Amino acid sequence: MIFGSDWWEVGVGPVLPENERTRHRRLRAQGSRERSDLDAILAAGFVCHVGVVVDGTPLVVPTVYGCDGETLYFHGSVASRSLVAGGQDEVCVTVTHVDGLVLARSLFEHGVNYRSAMIFGVPRPVTEPEEKLEGLRVLSEHSVPGQWDYARLPNKKELAATALLALSLEEASVKIRVGPPDDGDGPDAALGLWAGVLPLRTTWGELEPDPVLPEDVEAPDHLARRQNTPL
Amino acid sequence: MIFGSDWWEVGVGPVLPENERTRHRRLRAQGSRERSDLDAILAAGFVCHVGVVVDGTPLVVPTVYGCDGETLYFHGSVASRSLVAGGQDEVCVTVTHVDGLVLARSLFEHGVNYRSAMIFGVPRPVTEPEEKLEGLRVLSEHSVPGQWDYARLPNKKELAATALLALSLEEASVKIRVGPPDDGDGPDAALGLWAGVLPLRTTWGELEPDPVLPEDVEAPDHLARRQNTPL
Repeated sequence: MIFGSDWWEVGVGPVLPENERTRHRRLRAQGSRERSDLDAILAAGFVCHVGVVVDGTPLVVPTVYGCDGETLYFHGSVASRSLVAGGQDEVCVTVTHVDGLVLARSLFEHGVNYRSAMIFGVPRPVTEPEEKLEGLRVLSEHSVPGQWDYARLPNKKELAATALLALSLEEASVKIRVGPPDDGDGPDAALGLWAGVLPLRTTWGELEPDPVLPEDVEAPDHLARRQNTPL
Repeated sequence: MIFGSDWWEVGVGPVLPENERTRHRRLRAQGSRERSDLDAILAAGFVCHVGVVVDGTPLVVPTVYGCDGETLYFHGSVASRSLVAGGQDEVCVTVTHVDGLVLARSLFEHGVNYRSAMIFGVPRPVTEPEEKLEGLRVLSEHSVPGQWDYARLPNKKELAATALLALSLEEASVKIRVGPPDDGDGPDAALGLWAGVLPLRTTWGELEPDPVLPEDVEAPDHLARRQNTPL
Protein backbone atom coordinates (compact mmCIF):
# COMPACT_ATOMS: atom_id res chain seq x y z
CA MET A 1 0.00 0.00 0.00
CA ILE A 2 1.38 3.32 -1.07
CA PHE A 3 0.43 5.09 2.14
CA GLY A 4 2.83 3.09 4.21
CA SER A 5 5.63 2.67 1.76
CA ASP A 6 5.97 6.24 0.62
CA TRP A 7 6.61 7.65 4.03
CA TRP A 8 9.41 5.24 4.83
CA GLU A 9 11.26 6.71 1.89
CA VAL A 10 11.29 10.16 3.43
CA GLY A 11 14.91 10.78 4.24
CA VAL A 12 15.61 7.27 5.42
CA GLY A 13 16.79 5.38 2.40
CA PRO A 14 18.15 5.62 -1.13
CA VAL A 15 16.16 7.51 -3.74
CA LEU A 16 14.49 4.97 -5.99
CA PRO A 17 15.27 5.18 -9.71
CA GLU A 18 12.38 6.74 -11.54
CA ASN A 19 10.60 5.70 -14.71
CA GLU A 20 7.46 7.12 -16.29
CA ARG A 21 5.23 4.99 -14.11
CA THR A 22 6.86 5.86 -10.81
CA ARG A 23 7.04 9.49 -11.85
CA HIS A 24 3.31 9.37 -12.53
CA ARG A 25 2.76 7.76 -9.15
CA ARG A 26 4.98 10.25 -7.45
CA LEU A 27 2.91 13.05 -8.89
CA ARG A 28 -0.20 11.68 -7.20
CA ALA A 29 1.51 11.31 -3.85
CA GLN A 30 3.40 14.52 -3.69
CA GLY A 31 5.82 15.94 -1.30
CA SER A 32 5.20 19.64 -1.10
CA ARG A 33 7.39 22.61 -0.34
CA GLU A 34 4.48 25.00 -0.36
CA ARG A 35 4.03 26.78 2.95
CA SER A 36 0.35 27.14 2.13
CA ASP A 37 -0.01 23.35 2.05
CA LEU A 38 1.54 23.09 5.48
CA ASP A 39 -0.69 25.83 6.83
CA ALA A 40 -3.78 24.20 5.39
CA ILE A 41 -2.95 20.83 6.92
CA LEU A 42 -2.36 22.38 10.33
CA ALA A 43 -5.53 24.45 10.07
CA ALA A 44 -7.63 21.40 9.17
CA GLY A 45 -7.19 19.56 12.47
CA PHE A 46 -6.41 19.85 16.15
CA VAL A 47 -4.82 16.53 17.10
CA CYS A 48 -1.23 15.61 16.38
CA HIS A 49 1.01 12.70 17.25
CA VAL A 50 4.19 13.73 19.02
CA GLY A 51 7.17 11.43 18.81
CA VAL A 52 9.79 11.61 21.52
CA VAL A 53 12.69 9.42 22.49
CA VAL A 54 12.66 8.21 26.09
CA ASP A 55 15.62 6.14 27.25
CA GLY A 56 16.51 5.43 23.65
CA THR A 57 13.11 4.13 22.60
CA PRO A 58 10.30 5.91 20.80
CA LEU A 59 7.02 7.06 22.32
CA VAL A 60 4.19 8.41 20.17
CA VAL A 61 1.69 10.48 22.10
CA PRO A 62 -1.53 11.90 20.69
CA THR A 63 -2.19 15.44 21.83
CA VAL A 64 -4.02 18.61 20.94
CA TYR A 65 -2.14 21.36 19.13
CA GLY A 66 -2.77 24.94 18.16
CA CYS A 67 -1.02 26.98 15.56
CA ASP A 68 -0.73 30.70 14.83
CA GLY A 69 1.05 30.40 11.52
CA GLU A 70 4.56 30.66 12.99
CA THR A 71 4.52 28.42 15.98
CA LEU A 72 2.87 25.18 16.95
CA TYR A 73 1.83 24.94 20.62
CA PHE A 74 1.09 21.79 22.56
CA HIS A 75 1.07 20.55 26.16
CA GLY A 76 3.93 18.83 27.92
CA SER A 77 3.04 17.57 31.35
CA VAL A 78 4.91 19.03 34.28
CA ALA A 79 5.61 15.43 35.22
CA SER A 80 7.40 14.58 32.01
CA ARG A 81 11.16 14.86 32.29
CA SER A 82 11.97 14.56 28.64
CA LEU A 83 9.62 17.28 27.54
CA VAL A 84 9.58 19.84 30.30
CA ALA A 85 13.33 20.11 30.53
CA GLY A 86 13.14 21.09 26.90
CA GLY A 87 16.07 22.50 25.07
CA GLN A 88 17.58 19.05 24.67
CA ASP A 89 15.43 16.55 22.94
CA GLU A 90 14.11 16.70 19.44
CA VAL A 91 10.52 15.82 18.68
CA CYS A 92 8.63 14.90 15.54
CA VAL A 93 5.08 16.23 15.44
CA THR A 94 2.93 14.55 12.82
CA VAL A 95 -0.48 15.78 11.72
CA THR A 96 -2.43 13.41 9.50
CA HIS A 97 -5.78 13.65 7.73
CA VAL A 98 -7.00 10.45 6.13
CA ASP A 99 -9.20 11.31 3.17
CA GLY A 100 -10.12 7.96 1.71
CA LEU A 101 -9.25 4.47 0.59
CA VAL A 102 -7.74 4.08 -2.86
CA LEU A 103 -9.25 0.91 -4.33
CA ALA A 104 -7.16 -0.29 -7.23
CA ARG A 105 -7.47 -3.20 -9.61
CA SER A 106 -4.52 -4.91 -7.95
CA LEU A 107 -4.00 -5.24 -4.21
CA PHE A 108 -0.46 -3.99 -4.63
CA GLU A 109 -1.75 -0.64 -5.92
CA HIS A 110 -4.22 -0.11 -3.09
CA GLY A 111 -3.52 2.91 -0.94
CA VAL A 112 -4.86 5.86 0.97
CA ASN A 113 -5.57 9.47 0.10
CA TYR A 114 -4.20 11.68 2.81
CA ARG A 115 -2.68 15.00 3.80
CA SER A 116 0.13 14.88 6.28
CA ALA A 117 2.79 17.07 7.78
CA MET A 118 5.79 16.31 9.96
CA ILE A 119 7.40 19.07 11.98
CA PHE A 120 10.81 18.52 13.49
CA GLY A 121 12.71 20.39 16.13
CA VAL A 122 13.42 20.95 19.77
CA PRO A 123 10.35 22.37 21.51
CA ARG A 124 10.80 25.42 23.71
CA PRO A 125 9.08 25.54 27.09
CA VAL A 126 6.97 28.69 27.29
CA THR A 127 7.45 30.09 30.77
CA GLU A 128 7.00 33.85 30.51
CA PRO A 129 3.47 34.39 31.86
CA GLU A 130 2.13 36.69 29.14
CA GLU A 131 3.53 34.52 26.39
CA LYS A 132 2.16 31.41 28.08
CA LEU A 133 -1.33 32.81 28.34
CA GLU A 134 -1.23 33.87 24.70
CA GLY A 135 0.06 30.45 23.67
CA LEU A 136 -2.75 28.76 25.57
CA ARG A 137 -5.18 31.09 23.86
CA VAL A 138 -3.81 30.02 20.46
CA LEU A 139 -4.07 26.37 21.52
CA SER A 140 -7.63 26.77 22.74
CA GLU A 141 -8.90 28.90 19.88
CA HIS A 142 -7.44 26.53 17.32
CA SER A 143 -9.64 23.66 18.43
CA VAL A 144 -12.57 25.52 19.98
CA PRO A 145 -12.79 29.00 18.51
CA GLY A 146 -14.80 31.32 20.72
CA GLN A 147 -14.25 29.45 23.97
CA TRP A 148 -11.44 31.72 25.20
CA ASP A 149 -13.91 34.58 25.55
CA TYR A 150 -16.61 32.35 26.99
CA ALA A 151 -15.23 29.86 29.52
CA ARG A 152 -13.33 30.80 32.68
CA LEU A 153 -9.72 31.79 31.99
CA PRO A 154 -6.91 29.87 33.71
CA ASN A 155 -5.97 31.25 37.14
CA LYS A 156 -2.41 31.45 38.48
CA LYS A 157 -2.47 27.96 39.98
CA GLU A 158 -3.79 26.41 36.78
CA LEU A 159 -1.20 28.26 34.71
CA ALA A 160 1.54 26.95 36.97
CA ALA A 161 0.19 23.42 36.54
CA THR A 162 0.25 23.67 32.75
CA ALA A 163 3.42 23.04 30.78
CA LEU A 164 3.23 24.64 27.36
CA LEU A 165 5.66 23.90 24.57
CA ALA A 166 6.33 25.88 21.42
CA LEU A 167 7.71 24.41 18.22
CA SER A 168 8.84 26.48 15.27
CA LEU A 169 7.47 25.49 11.85
CA GLU A 170 10.87 25.97 10.19
CA GLU A 171 11.65 22.31 9.64
CA ALA A 172 8.61 20.64 8.18
CA SER A 173 7.80 18.05 5.56
CA VAL A 174 4.46 17.72 3.79
CA LYS A 175 3.03 14.84 1.83
CA ILE A 176 -0.32 14.63 0.11
CA ARG A 177 -2.04 12.04 -2.02
CA VAL A 178 -5.21 12.79 -3.92
CA GLY A 179 -7.04 11.17 -6.78
CA PRO A 180 -7.94 7.81 -8.23
CA PRO A 181 -5.80 4.66 -8.27
CA ASP A 182 -2.60 4.59 -10.32
CA ASP A 183 -3.30 1.50 -12.36
CA GLY A 184 -6.00 2.78 -14.70
CA ASP A 185 -3.54 3.03 -17.58
CA GLY A 186 -1.75 -0.22 -16.95
CA PRO A 187 -2.34 -3.87 -17.89
CA ASP A 188 -4.68 -4.45 -14.94
CA ALA A 189 -7.26 -2.15 -16.49
CA ALA A 190 -8.09 -5.07 -18.78
CA LEU A 191 -9.26 -7.11 -15.80
CA GLY A 192 -12.62 -5.33 -15.87
CA LEU A 193 -12.63 -4.73 -12.13
CA TRP A 194 -14.17 -1.76 -10.43
CA ALA A 195 -11.68 0.80 -9.12
CA GLY A 196 -11.92 4.17 -7.47
CA VAL A 197 -11.91 5.89 -4.12
CA LEU A 198 -14.04 5.48 -1.01
CA PRO A 199 -13.81 8.86 0.75
CA LEU A 200 -13.64 9.25 4.52
CA ARG A 201 -15.44 12.21 6.09
CA THR A 202 -15.13 13.63 9.57
CA THR A 203 -17.86 15.87 10.95
CA TRP A 204 -18.93 17.37 14.22
CA GLY A 205 -22.14 15.91 15.64
CA GLU A 206 -24.76 17.43 17.89
CA LEU A 207 -23.90 19.04 21.20
CA GLU A 208 -24.44 16.82 24.24
CA PRO A 209 -25.07 18.93 27.35
CA ASP A 210 -23.50 17.90 30.64
CA PRO A 211 -26.24 15.91 32.45
CA VAL A 212 -25.86 18.08 35.56
CA LEU A 213 -26.44 21.27 33.59
CA PRO A 214 -29.64 23.17 34.44
CA GLU A 215 -32.11 22.96 31.56
CA ASP A 216 -32.33 26.67 30.99
CA VAL A 217 -28.64 27.07 30.14
CA GLU A 218 -28.35 27.38 26.39
CA ALA A 219 -25.31 26.57 24.35
CA PRO A 220 -23.57 29.72 23.10
CA ASP A 221 -23.80 30.50 19.42
CA HIS A 222 -20.15 29.79 18.62
CA LEU A 223 -20.66 26.19 19.78
CA ALA A 224 -24.19 25.67 18.46
CA ARG A 225 -23.28 26.61 14.92
CA ARG A 226 -20.46 24.09 14.82
CA GLN A 227 -22.91 21.20 15.00
CA ASN A 228 -23.12 18.97 11.94
CA THR A 229 -20.30 20.77 10.14
CA PRO A 230 -17.18 19.18 8.65
CA LEU A 231 -14.04 19.11 10.78
CA MET B 1 -6.26 20.11 28.38
CA ILE B 2 -6.50 16.64 29.77
CA PHE B 3 -5.87 14.93 26.47
CA GLY B 4 -2.32 16.11 26.25
CA SER B 5 -1.37 16.08 29.87
CA ASP B 6 -2.59 12.60 30.76
CA TRP B 7 -0.47 10.84 28.21
CA TRP B 8 2.75 12.49 29.27
CA GLU B 9 2.26 10.87 32.64
CA VAL B 10 2.39 7.39 31.15
CA GLY B 11 5.57 5.95 32.52
CA VAL B 12 7.59 9.10 32.21
CA GLY B 13 7.26 10.90 35.49
CA PRO B 14 6.27 10.66 39.14
CA VAL B 15 2.79 9.50 40.07
CA LEU B 16 0.76 12.51 41.12
CA PRO B 17 -0.77 12.40 44.61
CA GLU B 18 -4.45 11.63 44.36
CA ASN B 19 -7.42 13.24 46.04
CA GLU B 20 -11.14 12.69 45.49
CA ARG B 21 -11.18 15.10 42.59
CA THR B 22 -8.22 13.65 40.74
CA ARG B 23 -9.47 10.17 41.44
CA HIS B 24 -12.79 11.17 39.91
CA ARG B 25 -10.98 12.63 36.94
CA ARG B 26 -8.82 9.60 36.60
CA LEU B 27 -11.90 7.44 36.41
CA ARG B 28 -13.14 9.35 33.37
CA ALA B 29 -9.82 9.09 31.56
CA GLN B 30 -8.98 5.51 32.28
CA GLY B 31 -6.05 3.39 31.53
CA SER B 32 -7.30 -0.07 30.76
CA ARG B 33 -5.84 -3.51 31.15
CA GLU B 34 -8.72 -5.16 29.34
CA ARG B 35 -7.64 -7.02 26.25
CA SER B 36 -11.11 -6.45 24.83
CA ASP B 37 -10.55 -2.69 24.98
CA LEU B 38 -7.32 -3.04 23.02
CA ASP B 39 -8.97 -5.29 20.46
CA ALA B 40 -11.87 -2.88 20.04
CA ILE B 41 -9.57 0.08 19.47
CA LEU B 42 -7.54 -1.80 16.88
CA ALA B 43 -10.69 -3.05 15.17
CA ALA B 44 -12.14 0.45 14.96
CA GLY B 45 -9.52 1.90 12.61
CA PHE B 46 -6.92 1.17 9.99
CA VAL B 47 -4.35 3.94 10.33
CA CYS B 48 -1.68 4.07 13.01
CA HIS B 49 1.28 6.29 13.76
CA VAL B 50 4.55 4.42 14.00
CA GLY B 51 7.34 5.97 16.02
CA VAL B 52 10.89 4.99 15.23
CA VAL B 53 14.26 6.38 16.21
CA VAL B 54 16.54 7.29 13.32
CA ASP B 55 20.02 8.52 14.18
CA GLY B 56 18.87 9.27 17.70
CA THR B 57 15.89 11.40 16.75
CA PRO B 58 12.22 10.45 16.52
CA LEU B 59 10.21 9.98 13.35
CA VAL B 60 6.43 9.49 13.44
CA VAL B 61 5.05 7.93 10.29
CA PRO B 62 1.38 7.40 9.55
CA THR B 63 0.66 4.05 7.98
CA VAL B 64 -2.04 1.46 7.48
CA TYR B 65 -2.21 -1.52 9.82
CA GLY B 66 -4.09 -4.76 10.01
CA CYS B 67 -4.63 -6.98 12.99
CA ASP B 68 -5.68 -10.59 13.48
CA GLY B 69 -6.05 -10.47 17.24
CA GLU B 70 -2.49 -11.65 17.96
CA THR B 71 -0.31 -9.67 15.63
CA LEU B 72 -0.33 -6.21 14.14
CA TYR B 73 0.94 -6.02 10.55
CA PHE B 74 2.18 -2.93 8.77
CA HIS B 75 4.47 -2.00 5.89
CA GLY B 76 8.15 -1.12 6.15
CA SER B 77 9.64 0.05 2.90
CA VAL B 78 12.43 -2.00 1.44
CA ALA B 79 14.36 1.25 1.31
CA SER B 80 14.15 1.92 5.01
CA ARG B 81 17.22 0.80 6.88
CA SER B 82 15.88 1.16 10.35
CA LEU B 83 12.78 -0.90 9.74
CA VAL B 84 13.73 -3.58 7.26
CA ALA B 85 16.78 -4.70 9.18
CA GLY B 86 14.33 -5.37 11.99
CA GLY B 87 15.30 -7.29 15.05
CA GLN B 88 17.09 -4.29 16.46
CA ASP B 89 15.01 -1.21 16.87
CA GLU B 90 11.98 -0.80 19.02
CA VAL B 91 8.90 0.95 17.68
CA CYS B 92 5.87 2.51 19.27
CA VAL B 93 2.67 2.05 17.28
CA THR B 94 -0.12 4.37 18.35
CA VAL B 95 -3.73 4.05 17.27
CA THR B 96 -5.96 6.97 18.17
CA HIS B 97 -9.68 7.65 17.75
CA VAL B 98 -10.81 11.16 18.62
CA ASP B 99 -14.41 11.05 19.77
CA GLY B 100 -15.19 14.61 20.70
CA LEU B 101 -14.31 17.88 22.37
CA VAL B 102 -14.94 18.16 26.09
CA LEU B 103 -16.23 21.68 26.70
CA ALA B 104 -15.91 22.57 30.36
CA ARG B 105 -16.81 25.64 32.36
CA SER B 106 -13.14 26.51 32.75
CA LEU B 107 -10.56 26.42 29.98
CA PHE B 108 -8.27 24.41 32.22
CA GLU B 109 -10.78 21.55 32.31
CA HIS B 110 -11.28 21.40 28.55
CA GLY B 111 -10.23 18.16 26.94
CA VAL B 112 -10.92 15.49 24.40
CA ASN B 113 -12.82 12.21 24.48
CA TYR B 114 -10.73 9.55 22.83
CA ARG B 115 -9.73 5.91 22.61
CA SER B 116 -6.07 5.20 22.15
CA ALA B 117 -3.64 2.35 22.26
CA MET B 118 0.13 2.21 22.18
CA ILE B 119 1.90 -0.98 21.21
CA PHE B 120 5.60 -1.36 21.93
CA GLY B 121 8.14 -3.82 20.68
CA VAL B 122 10.62 -4.79 18.05
CA PRO B 123 8.83 -5.59 14.79
CA ARG B 124 9.69 -8.82 13.01
CA PRO B 125 10.19 -8.76 9.23
CA VAL B 126 7.88 -11.34 7.67
CA THR B 127 9.88 -13.06 4.95
CA GLU B 128 8.52 -16.59 4.65
CA PRO B 129 6.34 -16.38 1.49
CA GLU B 130 3.23 -18.10 2.84
CA GLU B 131 3.28 -16.12 6.04
CA LYS B 132 3.89 -12.91 4.12
CA LEU B 133 0.93 -13.47 1.84
CA GLU B 134 -1.28 -14.26 4.84
CA GLY B 135 -0.03 -11.15 6.66
CA LEU B 136 -0.81 -9.02 3.63
CA ARG B 137 -4.25 -10.58 3.51
CA VAL B 138 -4.81 -9.61 7.16
CA LEU B 139 -3.57 -6.09 6.42
CA SER B 140 -5.80 -5.75 3.37
CA GLU B 141 -8.91 -7.31 4.86
CA HIS B 142 -8.64 -5.15 7.97
CA SER B 143 -9.10 -1.93 6.03
CA VAL B 144 -10.99 -3.17 2.97
CA PRO B 145 -12.79 -6.41 3.81
CA GLY B 146 -13.70 -8.34 0.72
CA GLN B 147 -11.01 -6.90 -1.54
CA TRP B 148 -8.63 -9.83 -1.14
CA ASP B 149 -11.05 -12.06 -3.03
CA TYR B 150 -11.89 -9.37 -5.57
CA ALA B 151 -8.78 -7.46 -6.69
CA ARG B 152 -5.72 -9.05 -8.31
CA LEU B 153 -3.47 -10.80 -5.80
CA PRO B 154 0.19 -9.72 -5.50
CA ASN B 155 2.54 -11.51 -7.90
CA LYS B 156 6.06 -12.64 -7.03
CA LYS B 157 7.66 -9.36 -8.04
CA GLU B 158 5.19 -7.31 -6.04
CA LEU B 159 5.66 -9.55 -3.01
CA ALA B 160 9.40 -9.09 -3.24
CA ALA B 161 8.92 -5.32 -3.39
CA THR B 162 6.78 -5.30 -0.24
CA ALA B 163 8.36 -5.29 3.19
CA LEU B 164 5.91 -6.55 5.80
CA LEU B 165 6.46 -6.19 9.52
CA ALA B 166 4.75 -8.04 12.35
CA LEU B 167 4.41 -6.69 15.86
CA SER B 168 3.18 -8.75 18.78
CA LEU B 169 0.40 -7.23 20.91
CA GLU B 170 2.06 -8.36 24.15
CA GLU B 171 3.22 -4.96 25.30
CA ALA B 172 0.36 -2.52 24.93
CA SER B 173 -1.12 0.39 26.82
CA VAL B 174 -4.70 1.60 26.44
CA LYS B 175 -6.26 4.87 27.46
CA ILE B 176 -9.85 5.98 27.03
CA ARG B 177 -11.80 9.04 28.01
CA VAL B 178 -15.57 9.19 27.75
CA GLY B 179 -18.23 11.39 29.20
CA PRO B 180 -18.99 14.97 30.13
CA PRO B 181 -16.56 17.53 31.60
CA ASP B 182 -15.13 16.99 35.10
CA ASP B 183 -16.12 20.32 36.61
CA GLY B 184 -19.86 19.86 36.95
CA ASP B 185 -19.61 19.27 40.66
CA GLY B 186 -17.05 21.94 41.38
CA PRO B 187 -17.22 25.69 42.12
CA ASP B 188 -17.28 26.59 38.41
CA ALA B 189 -20.75 25.06 38.08
CA ALA B 190 -22.00 28.25 39.72
CA LEU B 191 -20.79 30.30 36.74
CA GLY B 192 -23.91 29.33 34.80
CA LEU B 193 -21.97 28.51 31.67
CA TRP B 194 -22.94 25.84 29.18
CA ALA B 195 -20.82 22.71 29.30
CA GLY B 196 -20.87 19.37 27.57
CA VAL B 197 -19.40 17.46 24.66
CA LEU B 198 -19.24 18.13 20.93
CA PRO B 199 -18.86 14.67 19.36
CA LEU B 200 -16.71 13.99 16.32
CA ARG B 201 -17.95 11.43 13.81
CA THR B 202 -16.08 9.72 11.00
CA THR B 203 -17.99 8.09 8.17
CA TRP B 204 -17.36 6.65 4.76
CA GLY B 205 -18.77 8.70 1.92
CA GLU B 206 -19.97 7.69 -1.54
CA LEU B 207 -17.81 5.65 -3.90
CA GLU B 208 -16.02 7.72 -6.55
CA PRO B 209 -15.28 5.59 -9.63
CA ASP B 210 -11.94 5.98 -11.38
CA PRO B 211 -12.63 8.42 -14.26
CA VAL B 212 -11.10 6.00 -16.79
CA LEU B 213 -13.41 3.20 -15.69
CA PRO B 214 -15.92 2.03 -18.33
CA GLU B 215 -19.44 3.00 -17.30
CA ASP B 216 -20.79 -0.51 -17.23
CA VAL B 217 -18.44 -1.68 -14.51
CA GLU B 218 -20.38 -1.77 -11.25
CA ALA B 219 -18.91 -1.54 -7.81
CA PRO B 220 -18.96 -4.91 -6.05
CA ASP B 221 -21.37 -5.34 -3.19
CA HIS B 222 -18.76 -5.45 -0.44
CA LEU B 223 -17.70 -1.91 -1.42
CA ALA B 224 -21.11 -0.50 -2.27
CA ARG B 225 -22.58 -1.36 1.10
CA ARG B 226 -19.80 0.44 2.94
CA GLN B 227 -20.98 3.81 1.62
CA ASN B 228 -22.36 6.23 4.19
CA THR B 229 -21.53 3.97 7.12
CA PRO B 230 -19.52 4.89 10.21
CA LEU B 231 -15.82 4.08 10.22
